[in-house]
Amino acid sequence: MHAPVELADSAAEILARLRARAPRVHCITNSVAQQYTANVLLAAGAVPSMTIASEEIVSFVASADALLVNLGTFDADRRAAIDAAIGAAKAARMPWVLDPVFIDVAPTRARFARDLLARGPSVVRLNSREFAALSGGDPTGDAPTRLAKAHATIIALTGGVDRVTDGVRNLVIANGDPLMALVTAMGCAGSALVAAALTVETDAFVATGGALAAFAVAGEVAAQDVRGPGGFAAAIIDALYNLDRAVLRQRAKVS
Amino acid sequence: MHAPVELADSAAEILARLRARAPRVHCITNSVAQQYTANVLLAAGAVPSMTIASEEIVSFVASADALLVNLGTFDADRRAAIDAAIGAAKAARMPWVLDPVFIDVAPTRARFARDLLARGPSVVRLNSREFAALSGGDPTGDAPTRLAKAHATIIALTGGVDRVTDGVRNLVIANGDPLMALVTAMGCAGSALVAAALTVETDAFVATGGALAAFAVAGEVAAQDVRGPGGFAAAIIDALYNLDRAVLRQRAKVS
Amino acid sequence: MHAPVELADSAAEILARLRARAPRVHCITNSVAQQYTANVLLAAGAVPSMTIASEEIVSFVASADALLVNLGTFDADRRAAIDAAIGAAKAARMPWVLDPVFIDVAPTRARFARDLLARGPSVVRLNSREFAALSGGDPTGDAPTRLAKAHATIIALTGGVDRVTDGVRNLVIANGDPLMALVTAMGCAGSALVAAALTVETDAFVATGGALAAFAVAGEVAAQDVRGPGGFAAAIIDALYNLDRAVLRQRAKVS
Repeated sequence: MHAPVELADSAAEILARLRARAPRVHCITNSVAQQYTANVLLAAGAVPSMTIASEEIVSFVASADALLVNLGTFDADRRAAIDAAIGAAKAARMPWVLDPVFIDVAPTRARFARDLLARGPSVVRLNSREFAALSGGDPTGDAPTRLAKAHATIIALTGGVDRVTDGVRNLVIANGDPLMALVTAMGCAGSALVAAALTVETDAFVATGGALAAFAVAGEVAAQDVRGPGGFAAAIIDALYNLDRAVLRQRAKVS
Repeated sequence: MHAPVELADSAAEILARLRARAPRVHCITNSVAQQYTANVLLAAGAVPSMTIASEEIVSFVASADALLVNLGTFDADRRAAIDAAIGAAKAARMPWVLDPVFIDVAPTRARFARDLLARGPSVVRLNSREFAALSGGDPTGDAPTRLAKAHATIIALTGGVDRVTDGVRNLVIANGDPLMALVTAMGCAGSALVAAALTVETDAFVATGGALAAFAVAGEVAAQDVRGPGGFAAAIIDALYNLDRAVLRQRAKVS
Repeated sequence: MHAPVELADSAAEILARLRARAPRVHCITNSVAQQYTANVLLAAGAVPSMTIASEEIVSFVASADALLVNLGTFDADRRAAIDAAIGAAKAARMPWVLDPVFIDVAPTRARFARDLLARGPSVVRLNSREFAALSGGDPTGDAPTRLAKAHATIIALTGGVDRVTDGVRNLVIANGDPLMALVTAMGCAGSALVAAALTVETDAFVATGGALAAFAVAGEVAAQDVRGPGGFAAAIIDALYNLDRAVLRQRAKVS
């Protein structure tokens, strides 16, 4: 599974299945990220839904195929919606992804994220600063592996390179482009793509690696003929929409 | 009115009047759709406003030219805002459009949408699943015509082809592009465009058909030289901005 | 400072410092404007944060470098968040910008904006109608200069040309493109850029003029090869990302 060709093939199969099955991913995410996240999901073949209203969150989650919980906004209503949504996802044995945005800035968020981690997300996707705030550990050492093992989850650390671990297996994806950091909600959209992948690939480690590899390769392709982050934001959606096995095999840098 | 040239001309006149008069459309819509809806309205010559705060919704609606009610978010505050907004629109004899998003997923939304239908929207724009949830009828039969007649409204069913009926007259618009379904808020933006058209064309059936034909033709033009839904989202806005009578006459497929 | 070359150089230095220092601008802004505002800040080298939740607004503002207060949404929660945010900004002697969106439509907003003006924003950015609603004065006369002097603030009136005054010094920036008015949140994003500039240029008059000149010149560059507002929305982000001293010197029309 660690060989580039294998992960490239897994990524290609995940995309093919998403395009064929159109799973719905319910996203509890912040209003900054909603539109871009929805468009990335649609480009990949999935269907987004986004409501956070307490009256209907359970209906929406129960009939979805996966759940994304992003902490980009953090108020009492949102926390109640998250609690109900996770309950509905767990009742339906549905995969769910935790994206603990900005928990390094506000301590109340970090505590809430630790409570959510205890509820058993399929995957936690975050950056180095957020990892440090979540676990107290060093993101560059073996703390991610230990955290994944302790919580029987996948830790996906994204940044210059992406690192994925399930506590035993480890992947490093050295794709992507610096422009990805200059478009708001790019990380949030990547988390949504992971949630979509979990609906069509039962090995959560492979699903996470495949989704992140596909997104990072799409970023590389998109960066080739744009002038800046404005054009790039659209181009990566187009690259993801058109991504195929040949390009994934040619470009994926996985170890 | 059913001949393509006539509807193409009506669409061209609607666009010309929007560009000349810049009517303001107040949109109660979900946060996923707000930005794209605003940009489509601006490209067509209209002016969007979007607040849902109870303290000011009546001020904003009373001074607008049309109202859009989109159920993409559904909480107690939003329902109260919708109630007050429809009251203000009716008091001012202002056209209003109902877009009952996702009522097929949550039964509470469907009930609320039926209550809103009873308040007499000028137009209801929705897809086939939403139509079935609203009326219980078969969207492919004569149920749309009967619903329009019963409620003295326009039913606009959008999808692969768009069908518009006022209970007596019927239009089918066979334009558009599959990429339209891969950009979030495209349907919501189409509903907003219908609301704008109602401010400059008193025959609501013609306004609805003209707006949807213009949007679908813009989608066809936009699809010609893009690589995917990312570029398409911007290109359809540009196509709408530049749309003229000649292109409408050449491309509109109306029956 | 009034000579075009001087302001062009100031604008270039502001951009260079933003790219080097990556200050964080906390934006309390409406959901329509959040995504675009975030992307403009990122393209300029700054980092956006956007939460308005009462539980964490003080943490986010206290650790930011500047604050933007945009009245695009106006409810009790938002007003409480604004109150706490301004308190945190003032406690940290942090610059803050007031953008009193649409106060010409709702009188309750205008009163609230006047209260905020009394709390001493570093800069107020607004259009002519909003200026009239805020001050009761004629935006084309010397009312802006008097208002700036009376409140020891900068008044930045944007529109066909942008006018900046601190009550003593006055600038007119005759750049920009009409397409800027056809993209939602363009003004809001301009206000955010002013807030970012205030973190790297201590003379608030120069910071405001430099940021608005950079944004308007980026708009001119972007308008050169686009077909409409859809492509323009991305192109101005790319132009801002690539903007350099040579282009600023060549294009800035300042008097």
